Amino acid sequence: MEEAKKMVAKLELVSLKEMGDDRGWLVVFEKGLNIPFDVKRCFFIYGTKEGLARGFHAHKKSKQMLVSVSGSVEIHCEANGKKEVYLLDAPNKGLFLEGMVWHTMENFSSDCVLMVLADDYYNEDDYIRNYDEFCALTNKENAK
Amino acid sequence: MEEAKKMVAKLELVSLKEMGDDRGWLVVFEKGLNIPFDVKRCFFIYGTKEGLARGFHAHKKSKQMLVSVSGSVEIHCEANGKKEVYLLDAPNKGLFLEGMVWHTMENFSSDCVLMVLADDYYNEDDYIRNYDEFCALTNKENAK
Repeated sequence: MEEAKKMVAKLELVSLKEMGDDRGWLVVFEKGLNIPFDVKRCFFIYGTKEGLARGFHAHKKSKQMLVSVSGSVEIHCEANGKKEVYLLDAPNKGLFLEGMVWHTMENFSSDCVLMVLADDYYNEDDYIRNYDEFCALTNKENAK
Repeated sequence: MEEAKKMVAKLELVSLKEMGDDRGWLVVFEKGLNIPFDVKRCFFIYGTKEGLARGFHAHKKSKQMLVSVSGSVEIHCEANGKKEVYLLDAPNKGLFLEGMVWHTMENFSSDCVLMVLADDYYNEDDYIRNYDEFCALTNKENAK
């Protein structure tokens, strides 16, 4: 059987340097410093209703950095045949995702503000919103 | 008397479109959509101690968008011979600043997370941190 070419998937929890002084705290994101791309888009998710999950998609190519700048949220990821859950609960914890990572955002705290920095403008063609399609593209048996 | 060349100063309160649905809210920042520059740097100010003010500088050239993504903060601005105070208290309120705006950030709420998107990497040469120098450069008599 011909093996389908696997698409890229990378995830990495990044510890961001907090700069503290007698005034308070500051965290900086800059290409080369702690993010491996130029930011083309930045968005915030907040006021998420209790018990609700968001996401349920993967990206074909785009790179993103997720940071919970207030409150906390769990990022449930599936990539490279593994499932992992990352708790983002501090502004100095960034989750870098590239490409084919199926992810959901769950258990938002009521005060959660989740920031996403992305390397490209919005493009619906980059989204995979169907889990079966994600599994087929990542050459993985759908375990359902 | 020779008139000194005035340097650029622009400020504008921008109403950002909130995209709400039955899950919660989302605000997007994208060049062309609601910010007039590519983002080279993004930083967050949080955990600011009560009663403390930050800022006390102007930029020679750089462009910034300030948004309080959690809590509230006042941005005290002086530019073009006028003083104005902007209250940032919602993720859909952005304050765009360009160039020679002397500004301080005051009355941070304890839960305030102030995001700043900037059009350039950090460059100390772009900062004016001395108020008298700011006044001289903006061709204004220092009223002190």
